[in-house]
Amino acid sequence: MMRTRPLKVALLGCGVVGSEVARIMTTHADDLAQRIGAPVELTGVAVRRPSKVREGIDPALVTTDATALVKRGDIDVVVEVIGGIEPARSLITTAFEHGASVVSANKALLAQDGAALHAAAGEHGRDLYYEAAVAGAIPLIRPLRESLAGDKVNRVLGIVNGTTNFILDKMDSTGAGYQEALDEATALGYAEADPTADVEGFDAAAKAAILAGIAFHTRVRLDDVHREGMTEVTAADFRSAKGMGCTIKLLAICERARDGASVTARVHPAMIPLSHPLASVRGAYNAVFVESDAAGQLMFYGPGAGGSPTASAVLGDLVAVCRNKLNGTTGPGESAYAALPVSPMGDVVTRYHISLDVADKPGVLAQVATVFAEHGVSIDTVRQQGKDGEASLVVVTHRALDAALTGTVEALRKLDTVRGVASIMRVEGE
Amino acid sequence: MMRTRPLKVALLGCGVVGSEVARIMTTHADDLAQRIGAPVELTGVAVRRPSKVREGIDPALVTTDATALVKRGDIDVVVEVIGGIEPARSLITTAFEHGASVVSANKALLAQDGAALHAAAGEHGRDLYYEAAVAGAIPLIRPLRESLAGDKVNRVLGIVNGTTNFILDKMDSTGAGYQEALDEATALGYAEADPTADVEGFDAAAKAAILAGIAFHTRVRLDDVHREGMTEVTAADFRSAKGMGCTIKLLAICERARDGASVTARVHPAMIPLSHPLASVRGAYNAVFVESDAAGQLMFYGPGAGGSPTASAVLGDLVAVCRNKLNGTTGPGESAYAALPVSPMGDVVTRYHISLDVADKPGVLAQVATVFAEHGVSIDTVRQQGKDGEASLVVVTHRALDAALTGTVEALRKLDTVRGVASIMRVEGE
Repeated sequence: MMRTRPLKVALLGCGVVGSEVARIMTTHADDLAQRIGAPVELTGVAVRRPSKVREGIDPALVTTDATALVKRGDIDVVVEVIGGIEPARSLITTAFEHGASVVSANKALLAQDGAALHAAAGEHGRDLYYEAAVAGAIPLIRPLRESLAGDKVNRVLGIVNGTTNFILDKMDSTGAGYQEALDEATALGYAEADPTADVEGFDAAAKAAILAGIAFHTRVRLDDVHREGMTEVTAADFRSAKGMGCTIKLLAICERARDGASVTARVHPAMIPLSHPLASVRGAYNAVFVESDAAGQLMFYGPGAGGSPTASAVLGDLVAVCRNKLNGTTGPGESAYAALPVSPMGDVVTRYHISLDVADKPGVLAQVATVFAEHGVSIDTVRQQGKDGEASLVVVTHRALDAALTGTVEALRKLDTVRGVASIMRVEGE
Repeated sequence: MMRTRPLKVALLGCGVVGSEVARIMTTHADDLAQRIGAPVELTGVAVRRPSKVREGIDPALVTTDATALVKRGDIDVVVEVIGGIEPARSLITTAFEHGASVVSANKALLAQDGAALHAAAGEHGRDLYYEAAVAGAIPLIRPLRESLAGDKVNRVLGIVNGTTNFILDKMDSTGAGYQEALDEATALGYAEADPTADVEGFDAAAKAAILAGIAFHTRVRLDDVHREGMTEVTAADFRSAKGMGCTIKLLAICERARDGASVTARVHPAMIPLSHPLASVRGAYNAVFVESDAAGQLMFYGPGAGGSPTASAVLGDLVAVCRNKLNGTTGPGESAYAALPVSPMGDVVTRYHISLDVADKPGVLAQVATVFAEHGVSIDTVRQQGKDGEASLVVVTHRALDAALTGTVEALRKLDTVRGVASIMRVEGE
C-alpha cells in the first residue's frame, strides 16, 4: 500500500554530500518510494552560492534562505549536511519547532550539543538521526543503539578518521615523514587545505564522544574526550613500531572501567600489533571494533568519508525517519540513563612504548628502572642499543594507569643521564 | 518516562541460546527496562524436558505446552529459539494470531517460509525480527534492511558458517584432510554429531536466501540457492590454492546481475586471494562483505554462532520489538517489491581453477586449450608440470558463465589424454 502524497524533504547544504543525496533521491525515487511506503519529494535546497550550476537539481528549488525553508511548516524531513555549529544548530532546532524531523551528518554539532538537540527533538516529538556523522557509510550508530540494545558494550576502538589513516598508512609503507605524507594527502584530496580538524584529532574526538555516548548510555561531550593529534608522529616512531611488530594508527577508544562505574573516551596515536585487524586498515578506510559482554568482538569496516558513502548513510536515515513519520512514531532518542562519570585520561589503563636517548655509561639502566619502579609501573621489555658514547633505551611497560606513566616520563626527563625522550607512544589492541 | 506495567515475553526453547536469553533478561533487567521504556517480564518458558534443572529460571515458568503459552493472549513478544520447521512455524503463526510479535533465530524456517510468516505478521499487525538467524551476533539484517535502505546493494559475499570455516581454517593451517579436521571440530564442539547441515552447506544456503531476499528486495527461497558443500575439498586443493596465493573458504554469495535485471544466490567452496580480508577470518568467526552503489564496500565481522552472541542479537531485536509495541507501531516488514527473477547457477559469472591429470605427451595442451576455446572460455594462466609420463595441467580461467565452465569441464573429462580432473574450484573475491 503506497501513500500517494509525497513526504517533503528540505536539503540544507549542497556540497559533496548534499549533491549526492539529491542525485540519489532523484535517480532512485521509485525504490525509495517503495521502501518508505510513500514518495519523497525534494522540496527545497538551501545553499550559500545560488548561482553555482548544480547538475540534476531544479534551480527553482534552490534558495539562500535556509531559515525560511525549515520554517515553511510543510517539510517532513530536514537533511542537514552543512556541517559546523552555526547556523546548523539553529536551523535544526527551528526545523523541530516547525514540524520536521532531522537527518544530520554533523559530528561536530552532535558531539558538542547532542543533548540539547535530542531534548529539542523529544520535546517536539521529532526524530534526530545521524548515522552519517560517524564513519561515513559504515553502519555503526544503528548497530550500537539498536542491534546491541540488549547487550552491554565495554569497549569501542577504531579508526574513525580517513585523512589521518591515509597519512599514517603512507608513512608506514614508504618511510615518509609526517609533512611529506600530509602533502601527498593534500595533493590527492584526502586532506583539506587546513587539515587541523583531522590531524589534531578534533574530528575523531567528536566521533568518539558520539560513540561513547551511545555505547555507554551516558552523555559524553567533546570536552570529555582526551585528544592528542598525530602531527608529532615521526618516521622514527614507525621504525620503533616495526621493531615491535606493530604499526601506528590514530585510534578513538571508548572504554568502560573494569569496575563498570565510569567510562573514558580518548583519541591519540598508538602502536597496535600487525596481527590486529585494525593494523591492515589501509588508506582512507575506517574500521571500528566493538566489544560487548554477550556478542564478544565485532568489527565494522568501510569507507569513512566521501560524498557517496556519506550519502548512503544519510539516505538510510531518511528512509527510517520517513517510515517513522508515516507510522506516526519516532525512533529511539537519546539514551543517557546510565549517566556514568567520564573519567580523565589519567585513569585510563594502558601501556607505553618509550624510547630514550641516554648516556652510554654503566648504571643508566638501573637509574631508569628505578624511576619506573618508583611510579609503580612495571616494565615488560627493555632494549638497549649503544654506540660512540650515545645509547638508546627502548622500554615497553606493562599495563598501568596513564597518570603513572606520564609521571614516569616526567621524572625520566629530569634524569641527568637521559638526554632526551625520543618517542612516547601508547600500545593498544592486545 | 517509564511504564510500570511490564511487557510479557514467552521464550520457546531453553537450550544454549534460550538459557542465555533468559539469563540476560534477568541479570540486565534494569538496563533493558531503561532502554525499552518499560520492564520486560519472562512470563513462560516452553521446553521439551521440564525436569532438567535450569539455573536462574523459576521452575514455575517452565511448561511443555508451547501452544498454550503462545495462546495465552497476554504475551507481547514470543522469542522462538527452538529451530527447525515444526513446531516452530505453527507456534509463530499462532503467536501472531494471539497478539504477540515474534523474535526468531530460525534461519531454516525463515529461508523456507519467510514470505508466509511475514504475511502473517503483516496481517495481524505484528513484528517479525530475526537478526540472530544470520551470522549470530553480527548486525547484518538491520544494517541491510535499515542502514542501506536508501542504497542499492549489488553483492553480499561472506563466510556465514562457523563450523565449516573452522574446518577449512584447520585444513589450511595444518595441511590436514577434511575428515581429520572435521574430527577435531567435533571433538572441540564446533561441529555437531551429524554435521550434514553445516558441511553440505544447508545452513549457509538458508542464510544466503535470507540475505539475498533483504539485499535485493526480492523473495529468495532456500530452493533458489545453488548449494555445494565442502566435504570434497582436499588437502591437494589447499596446496593448489597456496600455489596461487589463495586460500579456500565456503562462501555465501548473493549477486545482482550486471544488467540489474536478475539476481543469484549460491553457496560453495571457493579460492580467494590471501590479500582479501575474508581470507584472514579464522576459526569459527563469520564475516560478510556488502557492496552497494553509494556506500561502496562494507565488512561486518564477529562471532557467527554460540549461545551468548546469538542471545545478544535476540535481545537487540527484543528491545526493538518492545519499543515498537509501546509506540503502537511495527518495524519494517518484508520488502519484496523488486521481485527480480532468481537466475540459476549457470548464469553466474565466475572464474574456475581446474587441475587436470594428463598424459605427458606433445599436443595435450593444444587439445585442452581447444576445448576451452570451443566453450568460449578464455584462459588466464596455465601451469604445466610433468614427470615420468604423468603430467598435470593447472588452468585458471578468466571470468565466464558458470554454464560454459561446467560444459568445458565435462568436455575435458571426455578427452583421451585427460586421465582425471583432480580439482575444480571457483575463484572469487577479486
